[in-house]
Amino acid sequence: MNKVDRVSGQVVNINNDKSLFIIKIGGNVIDNSENLYHFLKDFTSLPGYKILVHGGGKVATQISETLGIETKLVDGRRITDIETLRVVTMVYGGLINKNIVAQLQRFGNNAIGLTGADGDFIRTKKRPVKTIDYGFVGDIDENSIKTQNIISLMEAGFTPVFCALTHDGEGQLLNTNADTIASALAVALSKSFQTTLIYCFEKKGVLKDINDEDSLIREIDPQRYEELKIKQIIHSGMLPKLDNAFTAIACGVKAVIIGHSDDLGNLKQNKPFGTRLTENS
Amino acid sequence: MNKVDRVSGQVVNINNDKSLFIIKIGGNVIDNSENLYHFLKDFTSLPGYKILVHGGGKVATQISETLGIETKLVDGRRITDIETLRVVTMVYGGLINKNIVAQLQRFGNNAIGLTGADGDFIRTKKRPVKTIDYGFVGDIDENSIKTQNIISLMEAGFTPVFCALTHDGEGQLLNTNADTIASALAVALSKSFQTTLIYCFEKKGVLKDINDEDSLIREIDPQRYEELKIKQIIHSGMLPKLDNAFTAIACGVKAVIIGHSDDLGNLKQNKPFGTRLTENS
Repeated sequence: MNKVDRVSGQVVNINNDKSLFIIKIGGNVIDNSENLYHFLKDFTSLPGYKILVHGGGKVATQISETLGIETKLVDGRRITDIETLRVVTMVYGGLINKNIVAQLQRFGNNAIGLTGADGDFIRTKKRPVKTIDYGFVGDIDENSIKTQNIISLMEAGFTPVFCALTHDGEGQLLNTNADTIASALAVALSKSFQTTLIYCFEKKGVLKDINDEDSLIREIDPQRYEELKIKQIIHSGMLPKLDNAFTAIACGVKAVIIGHSDDLGNLKQNKPFGTRLTENS
Repeated sequence: MNKVDRVSGQVVNINNDKSLFIIKIGGNVIDNSENLYHFLKDFTSLPGYKILVHGGGKVATQISETLGIETKLVDGRRITDIETLRVVTMVYGGLINKNIVAQLQRFGNNAIGLTGADGDFIRTKKRPVKTIDYGFVGDIDENSIKTQNIISLMEAGFTPVFCALTHDGEGQLLNTNADTIASALAVALSKSFQTTLIYCFEKKGVLKDINDEDSLIREIDPQRYEELKIKQIIHSGMLPKLDNAFTAIACGVKAVIIGHSDDLGNLKQNKPFGTRLTENS
């Protein structure tokens, strides 16, 4: 199957029709063991190749506090000094990641828990210091994802579970935003798979009225997105998420779904699930 | 190549002549960043398939103390209550394991950091409570090692790096002695590889006089081992280590080497390294 990459204008060769789901879960799923249990069960039952990406949740902040390390956030972004990097390496890479893997194994999913250092899967560059020194934070670029290594792992029968850590290739672990990891993986792997990127969060999806879960918008294409922005139905916090999603779609990702982790099971049953972002229809 | 298993008496078919090194490092290597750097460089330069197994070092105890969790040891064995399990999951599975992986990647070794839960590689049984409740400790049995999964991972081009954690297949992580993991891996994989098991510690090897590093015994076969025991040259702490080593050899492991982590490089250069335990010659 061929497809025109809307950013580069080049024809992209989709080698095969294998489907791949890349699913990102945030703290709201991780912090609630019942939600997590159901989500992981539903994740396991999805057909085809899949990759899980998880964020940190409140545990990193709690453990930092107990260890007497101050959590510093600028515009919601964690400043990762060397002590904080130690904590997130323990909490993301150890505590959260390995417990998710043990749960997935219980459901019969042959998961492997990973950072971007493992298998050299995600190599990033330490963010340069400008106004703010973010510390040990790694920025993804177009060469970061070692697609072939990830495909080798999946073809060997394993399900990758990534936490929000990468490395610089020089022995340094780095903290990298989990949303960014998920979309970079989706873009890179869309050259080899029919890739659907799913963000699970605490709402049903994109809502017309943020206080009304019944006001879910089922589908948005770029044209509808422009209209919704002009009418200011979509604004503030949702804008960067949707901008990134449409960029991923323009780079080859088949669809991006934003929905509630509890509803993931709908996907297997072909029931509507969250807000589906697609190309212009 | 065929070989008689000296425990079962059965003929074991060694499928191929591929070599495999399984190397276990303890706290003395992990706690010293310079030792660790040199060791990981030497590990990377070893030819053929290899697996690294690491213990915990002092970090787990330090972090436990800072978090206000009491470390309980009975006969040198850690009692793993639920709080301690959280700490070792963070420290072994996260902090130590992922930093070792990042270092190995720097040297060009395509390492993947693992617990026994990942890939279902090592499934153990929670130790039954008798006189002592060891807590969340997993005991390895003859079915624990999923040999085929480990081979798939290595054949896909990755170097497994195991920490001292396993799982019970029901979602529970368990703490398992790293020495035991290393020897169980060696025995299981000796059916498919020419396997050498190496324990790196802080001495040159088995010494005639524990205070004299020049008194290294270069080679011990089972007959010599009996003599050394009768003469009480080998006693106390070394006995269980050597008993386990000779059991591994009887189960198909080609050789077991006990030596100093600094000397691992000798192996590649065909120089003498540590004490080599072998079958009766």
